[in-house]
Amino acid sequence: MTNLAARAAENLATMREQKPLIHNITNFVVMNYTANVLLAIGASPVMAHAEQEVEQMVSFAGALVLNIGTLTDPWVEAMIQAGKKANALGVPIVLDPVGSGATSYRTKSTKRLIKELDIAIIRGNASEILSLADDQAVTKGVDSLHSVDEVAGATVELARMLQTTLAVTGPVDLITDGTEVLKVANGHHLMPYVTGTGCAATAVIGAFAAVDKNAAYAAATALAYFGLAGEKGGTSAQGPGSFITHMMDALYLLSPEQLEQGCRITVQ
Amino acid sequence: MTNLAARAAENLATMREQKPLIHNITNFVVMNYTANVLLAIGASPVMAHAEQEVEQMVSFAGALVLNIGTLTDPWVEAMIQAGKKANALGVPIVLDPVGSGATSYRTKSTKRLIKELDIAIIRGNASEILSLADDQAVTKGVDSLHSVDEVAGATVELARMLQTTLAVTGPVDLITDGTEVLKVANGHHLMPYVTGTGCAATAVIGAFAAVDKNAAYAAATALAYFGLAGEKGGTSAQGPGSFITHMMDALYLLSPEQLEQGCRITVQ
Amino acid sequence: MTNLAARAAENLATMREQKPLIHNITNFVVMNYTANVLLAIGASPVMAHAEQEVEQMVSFAGALVLNIGTLTDPWVEAMIQAGKKANALGVPIVLDPVGSGATSYRTKSTKRLIKELDIAIIRGNASEILSLADDQAVTKGVDSLHSVDEVAGATVELARMLQTTLAVTGPVDLITDGTEVLKVANGHHLMPYVTGTGCAATAVIGAFAAVDKNAAYAAATALAYFGLAGEKGGTSAQGPGSFITHMMDALYLLSPEQLEQGCRITVQ
Repeated sequence: MTNLAARAAENLATMREQKPLIHNITNFVVMNYTANVLLAIGASPVMAHAEQEVEQMVSFAGALVLNIGTLTDPWVEAMIQAGKKANALGVPIVLDPVGSGATSYRTKSTKRLIKELDIAIIRGNASEILSLADDQAVTKGVDSLHSVDEVAGATVELARMLQTTLAVTGPVDLITDGTEVLKVANGHHLMPYVTGTGCAATAVIGAFAAVDKNAAYAAATALAYFGLAGEKGGTSAQGPGSFITHMMDALYLLSPEQLEQGCRITVQ
Repeated sequence: MTNLAARAAENLATMREQKPLIHNITNFVVMNYTANVLLAIGASPVMAHAEQEVEQMVSFAGALVLNIGTLTDPWVEAMIQAGKKANALGVPIVLDPVGSGATSYRTKSTKRLIKELDIAIIRGNASEILSLADDQAVTKGVDSLHSVDEVAGATVELARMLQTTLAVTGPVDLITDGTEVLKVANGHHLMPYVTGTGCAATAVIGAFAAVDKNAAYAAATALAYFGLAGEKGGTSAQGPGSFITHMMDALYLLSPEQLEQGCRITVQ
Repeated sequence: MTNLAARAAENLATMREQKPLIHNITNFVVMNYTANVLLAIGASPVMAHAEQEVEQMVSFAGALVLNIGTLTDPWVEAMIQAGKKANALGVPIVLDPVGSGATSYRTKSTKRLIKELDIAIIRGNASEILSLADDQAVTKGVDSLHSVDEVAGATVELARMLQTTLAVTGPVDLITDGTEVLKVANGHHLMPYVTGTGCAATAVIGAFAAVDKNAAYAAATALAYFGLAGEKGGTSAQGPGSFITHMMDALYLLSPEQLEQGCRITVQ
């Protein structure tokens, strides 16, 4: 069995060495934060959404990160266009379906992206991920589901149906490609108080997917790293303001060795 | 007479308990900061501006915050569309007329929003607020007016004409619904050195308006809380950078009891 | 010969006194950071890109800053429109050709801006600046050029061809109007770990260009100030998160006297 702590350390070291360009088509709220997180971890971020350049830009990228947080139709079109080129080139796509399930427009747009593109990894909270099921029986009562244990069965089934890797984040994260099921227990209670924490986690997954072909391992090791940085940052934070600062420092400072020691990934 | 210090504490406690969703259609510059402020105070922010979803999104909201900071026509249309739905549902609208009076396009767009929508509260600086008067005699010499005492008369008259609550912020804030006149003396001299301070104050007013039906009390208590957080944050700040961090922490840390003790609202 | 350390101090003092309005048409990623940097240095930022208002807005401005970071055609049109008005009024234009050379769309858009507008200063990294040459012989092997000494000759030639002032930033910055060649050695190794560092530097150049008619001196003194703030901020930073905070404080706190003492501009 793969030693996932060692793999996390290796992915971090390799990613920092390769400094993959991560092409983000993301929402206005988190662009700055996402770019700073990608720089702090050692990757190279770019944001570009014009139809005239997304194909050329993604051709330089190690991963394409799509995020529907402040979506409109032209942005979804740009995501499709960039995504098709990414698929043609073998560049992994990571999708963040922000707010899917909350409005029909978001749910519909997310489903269109999933249908038209071959997406390697989708990261969201439980409501967002389970909103992707066509069979609403799968997600019945999602609002009453609180722990990853309660959504685990539906998530594995959905990953098989969609033929992708799903990462459900929360106090404990659940990652599954439909076969393997991994849990990540790293994190800090202040993380939900910073806007774009989930979006930035998705971008970090993109950076790890650029260096690890196994989507489930890329997602799990990225989330362990991101959560551990939250833990480190949280030790000296007074509130969300200082937490942002200290977690950003921790993302930069954490060594592969510290990640190997601190990461808490379990295989189910 | 209402004890406004007690009401401030109650509003903060109720808002944190209810965690109202605040739907923002706001400018690109302050989206991230506004969302972080709303999370820090205990509310739940969402930014959405697509015509396909603004009506559905606002139907979940405790308040709708409109901000014209980087306006273009499609955004103003989205504001009108979301605003009409908010009015139909009884969701309070708070408007931030950023730069109204500076360009004709901003003044005109603000007036259109006021004409087509029933707006609960408008927050701006003295120039922005007084630019809303059709009768320019009301605002004559606005550039030479420096204190809230000097603009108080014109503001009360304007609130009556527009049948809304106006909040003029500055070193001392003035809030009036055309009948009552309140002043808030909380704040810190570094607040104007952080972009989006006013915009974030408007969003906090939105969160308080979600739990307090009295628009003037909602605005005054929100501004007292926001200003007090500025005071607390300012005690340990070296400059605007650390001030952002510490004020964000203070918004999260301030208890209703501390707010009751520290808030400086007076009734004229 | 001009004492550039004294000029840096004088520019900073004059700019803080005049508080010039800096009109930015810039990218989504850096809008918040750019506005905060401009406030911290004592200038007055505004972001506006609607065709209905850019001409009126720029007429109040001390400088117009154009940045193509997340460009689309309507934004480029707004830049042209604002730029023509700026030229007519004698408002200096500073251009940041983010990613020029990386995609054809960016290179083409940058060249269009340069062709249609009279641009006072262009700031970018070596690849971006040298991508502006029509004669590709000038930039041959740009990817293998690492120091400003290696690009100095091509940059001077290009500045003459384009009849503008070029500022190539890196560990050491190179500024030339085609005649004079200046170098600025201020800076800190964490600066490239913060997104929008270059964009913010361009905005600071805009603020200095508002008070210093000599474009090369405005650019060099602004970059010395910005780099020195990086040095000061870096002394107490743990990583990029705390660096952002401390550098922002330093921009606010640095006095003209400290700048005069710490600035490291040399004339070649």
